[in-house]
Amino acid sequence: MMFKKIDHIAIAVNNIEKSAKLFEKILNVAASKTEIVKSEKVKTKFFHLSDSKIELIEGTEQNSTVAKFVKKKGEGIHHIAIEVDDIQKEIKRLKKQGFNTIKNTVSKGANGKLISFLFPKDTKGVLIELCQKTN
Amino acid sequence: MMFKKIDHIAIAVNNIEKSAKLFEKILNVAASKTEIVKSEKVKTKFFHLSDSKIELIEGTEQNSTVAKFVKKKGEGIHHIAIEVDDIQKEIKRLKKQGFNTIKNTVSKGANGKLISFLFPKDTKGVLIELCQKTN
Repeated sequence: MMFKKIDHIAIAVNNIEKSAKLFEKILNVAASKTEIVKSEKVKTKFFHLSDSKIELIEGTEQNSTVAKFVKKKGEGIHHIAIEVDDIQKEIKRLKKQGFNTIKNTVSKGANGKLISFLFPKDTKGVLIELCQKTN
Repeated sequence: MMFKKIDHIAIAVNNIEKSAKLFEKILNVAASKTEIVKSEKVKTKFFHLSDSKIELIEGTEQNSTVAKFVKKKGEGIHHIAIEVDDIQKEIKRLKKQGFNTIKNTVSKGANGKLISFLFPKDTKGVLIELCQKTN
């Protein structure tokens, strides 16, 4: 059994502070502090729901993938993240099956996790992040 | 604490049988049997990932919401579902805060759950389903 769980669902927004207030009302849960993830050019906040999370993301630069996504498609679900035990092993397994990752190397995501995204063209338009805890 | 967990993420597709084969490869998990949910005019299949699920949905009629969604926006994430203890209580709390549900009454969803959707206009374009177990 390789895959473990849905780690989070990420929602791209224009203004993370305003949206956090809205989602606090919806979810009845307090948002985490804002973290900047340099590798992805985003600010992030999490809402913990049992063993999974809802993440809000806002691009920190106009040329960030997330800012461009919001400009093109509007605010909404951006990706889903699945936590795995061994991200390198999982990428290897997926590549053998014909799937590709967007970047050639894994990146450092929020909370110090190792992350990698699969090409959404291969996955019915769904942007899937694989992530692995490092602590 | 009202909200419990992310119950599932639903992906709208054109052909649930073909897509199930694809996601079995991606997730390395077997899909459940197909279930028809009459109230929502969809066929559904689930992939269990720890305590949450990924759901595939295909409209059973051309005029179903899901078939129209796919025609307009293409295949991709359709909604996220959050399991609550008491759906009526939760809807009441949300209505007090100014949120609305798409239908006035709760419906019967997959696996016999009680379900209700919040208006995505109020929730940054994210279609959020509330669901409550009945068994």
